[in-house]
Amino acid sequence: MNTVEIIRKKRNNKILTNEEIIGLISWYTEGKIPDYQFSAFLMAAYIQGMNKEETAAMTRAMLFSGKIMDLSIFTGAKVDKHSTGGVGDKTSLIIAPIVAAAGIFVPMISGRGLGHTGGTLDKLEAIPGFRTDLSLKELKSVLKKCGAVLVGQTSEIAPADKLIYSLRDVTATVESIPLITSSIMSKKLAEGIDGLVLDVKTGSGAFMRETKDAVRLAESLINTAVAFDKKVIAFITDMNQPLGTHIGNWLEIVETVKILKGEVANDLYELSTVLAGAMIFLGDKAASLDEGKELAIRLINNGKAFEKFLKIVKAQNGDISYLENLEKYPQPKFKEEIQISGSGYLKKIDNYEIGMAASMLGAGRMTKEDIIDPKAGIIFTAKLGNKINDGDVIGEIFSDDKYRLADAKKRILNALVLDNRKPAKTVLIKRVMLGKNK
Amino acid sequence: MNTVEIIRKKRNNKILTNEEIIGLISWYTEGKIPDYQFSAFLMAAYIQGMNKEETAAMTRAMLFSGKIMDLSIFTGAKVDKHSTGGVGDKTSLIIAPIVAAAGIFVPMISGRGLGHTGGTLDKLEAIPGFRTDLSLKELKSVLKKCGAVLVGQTSEIAPADKLIYSLRDVTATVESIPLITSSIMSKKLAEGIDGLVLDVKTGSGAFMRETKDAVRLAESLINTAVAFDKKVIAFITDMNQPLGTHIGNWLEIVETVKILKGEVANDLYELSTVLAGAMIFLGDKAASLDEGKELAIRLINNGKAFEKFLKIVKAQNGDISYLENLEKYPQPKFKEEIQISGSGYLKKIDNYEIGMAASMLGAGRMTKEDIIDPKAGIIFTAKLGNKINDGDVIGEIFSDDKYRLADAKKRILNALVLDNRKPAKTVLIKRVMLGKNK
Repeated sequence: MNTVEIIRKKRNNKILTNEEIIGLISWYTEGKIPDYQFSAFLMAAYIQGMNKEETAAMTRAMLFSGKIMDLSIFTGAKVDKHSTGGVGDKTSLIIAPIVAAAGIFVPMISGRGLGHTGGTLDKLEAIPGFRTDLSLKELKSVLKKCGAVLVGQTSEIAPADKLIYSLRDVTATVESIPLITSSIMSKKLAEGIDGLVLDVKTGSGAFMRETKDAVRLAESLINTAVAFDKKVIAFITDMNQPLGTHIGNWLEIVETVKILKGEVANDLYELSTVLAGAMIFLGDKAASLDEGKELAIRLINNGKAFEKFLKIVKAQNGDISYLENLEKYPQPKFKEEIQISGSGYLKKIDNYEIGMAASMLGAGRMTKEDIIDPKAGIIFTAKLGNKINDGDVIGEIFSDDKYRLADAKKRILNALVLDNRKPAKTVLIKRVMLGKNK
Repeated sequence: MNTVEIIRKKRNNKILTNEEIIGLISWYTEGKIPDYQFSAFLMAAYIQGMNKEETAAMTRAMLFSGKIMDLSIFTGAKVDKHSTGGVGDKTSLIIAPIVAAAGIFVPMISGRGLGHTGGTLDKLEAIPGFRTDLSLKELKSVLKKCGAVLVGQTSEIAPADKLIYSLRDVTATVESIPLITSSIMSKKLAEGIDGLVLDVKTGSGAFMRETKDAVRLAESLINTAVAFDKKVIAFITDMNQPLGTHIGNWLEIVETVKILKGEVANDLYELSTVLAGAMIFLGDKAASLDEGKELAIRLINNGKAFEKFLKIVKAQNGDISYLENLEKYPQPKFKEEIQISGSGYLKKIDNYEIGMAASMLGAGRMTKEDIIDPKAGIIFTAKLGNKINDGDVIGEIFSDDKYRLADAKKRILNALVLDNRKPAKTVLIKRVMLGKNK
């Protein structure tokens, strides 16, 4: 068994054995296989695909390239959530404190934003002083004290994923279901969790634009979770419009606070309570998904969730005075209203373009090296199906860079389609998929 | 247009433009694209394929990565032959002097052996003193004096091919018809020829085991030659048994001399005269393939071909006394007869195994770094369909390494299948294919 033979086998659309996959990943991680061979393998795997056993083997190999967190000292259930990302998706920030308040441990490892999507770490770091780079010891201490911790990936967690992802990024091998699955699951499994809730987005602002692709990814993620004997539930959810109203790092913290304080009940509130409810169900603190959701709503209404959020932020060195008094935060230098000319029902949003406009304003990164402005972003209050009249203001944009405002506004307005007829209602949660071991 | 987009396009089975292919190849050759991106492209091109326009564009880009020989001072026709390689295939050595003796220029650039196949350069270098590394000036001088020259690829000829081939070799992207086509044709077109005869082998000792694959490769080579306005004829020929009887570098020189002197009339003689005849036809020194073949036979019979061979060898610094007196050559330290136990008709030969046995004995290379022993090899006199009796000797093996003899003999004997029934006659030339511009 050598590298070229394994590449040839996948190229010829044959199924690789456990040993072949583990060999390939571990040799590559150890630097024994050059990038040019591994990228040929990635392209072969991209085009020919990998079945669920191969995907599980790849996940296992990537998982064991690093350490698995030992959370055995935490005697309760440990559950996390993963979202495939979108525009205005700040559910992680809302869910972690709710679920922790329900008595479940949430060891949440998140990523950064790139392109049209934001990242949980960037949002958290908008809070002055907030540290996402905790050591394993610090992480456990926060998890013990608060029941949840929100951190970035350390070099000890699935180092193979970091290497492989960098290579996929420059070799057009990103959008592959088995490769996405092993990347997501190797990191999530390293958290030492018992259960996982998956939020797989579909629509114009999602990586999987078509629902059928989102369902295939969800199936693959579920199969892999089941192969590792984890409890798992996946939701296919809509990303044809921003989730909630706020897009941009500090703006998303603001909306998080409002949701956690029970001041807003929009689509973001709905999805957050559903996902938190599923985590509570997987953590055995509720007998059904509905009961889990009810408990999540109760924990918002009785103030426990927001209290928990403040506790976590404080434990991770964040200055909670900004959360207690949102007006205290520095204001962006420039802002401008988004005014509509023309009228009709909001039929369609190119949500990718909304995400890109937010990035342009300074909220995101076009390349990994870009610096983020936490104050930049968009408040977008219109929702699909709304009746809009000529001259209506449907939001506001914020930036420190005056010259970006006009372009961003144009991009947002160009992303909207109005129509005379009232469109069908948007369905937020399109499908719920259960892992077969539950 | 950037590299990742071009890779993605081919990955998605889309047709690349001329500009995209030329960009990719020239950037790679100039070192502006890293190996890991180019190998991902190669794998995508391998699996998804390239159409004839893409193949021609790739050939052109590779051709123009280097110099095209300017042979305009040679006023006659310039014709070459390319064979896809096999076991005992020494037709190049035989054809070049015949065709030159017919008054056609043959600027032949050849390669080295690898794996189960021999290489023309290695065979020529078995002649003491023979130089294959001529400068362009020396090459032209020999071509002028002799009408033919037999050299290796210089760094000035299609450097992109050398780079790309090395990468294909280690990324399981060798056996691709468009990639093989562009590799072969970029080198052949750099010779500044007017016409090209192709010998595409099929069978157990060929790269294309199946005739249908050989036909597809021949079609692709013809299409590309036609796209460059070259006269072209392809032959699909049998490689289910060694061509001629001698395998190994000096041994093949011996058989070449015997054929050129008209002492042997076997399958090698037949194929050589057919191929030489086709070159003579393309060079307008005969009105048909048959007339070309007749002239080739005449040039053997009247001694002109062998005389030309000696002249070329001498011009390239080879010691012709070894050709005039074959017995003068050093003998291998060990030799052993190949004796058959059992009897029947020779029904099948795993010719790949015969080639590998010759390599093992020292005649070839398993890796590019291996040193060749010019004396090592096999004389294999049996042909498919022959009646063999128990105890018959069907050949002899030669090596300086005593310990390799037993293994090689076993490998040869295991490669043979005897059967009670007389098998169907082997067809040497399976198909003749003409380029549409002729």
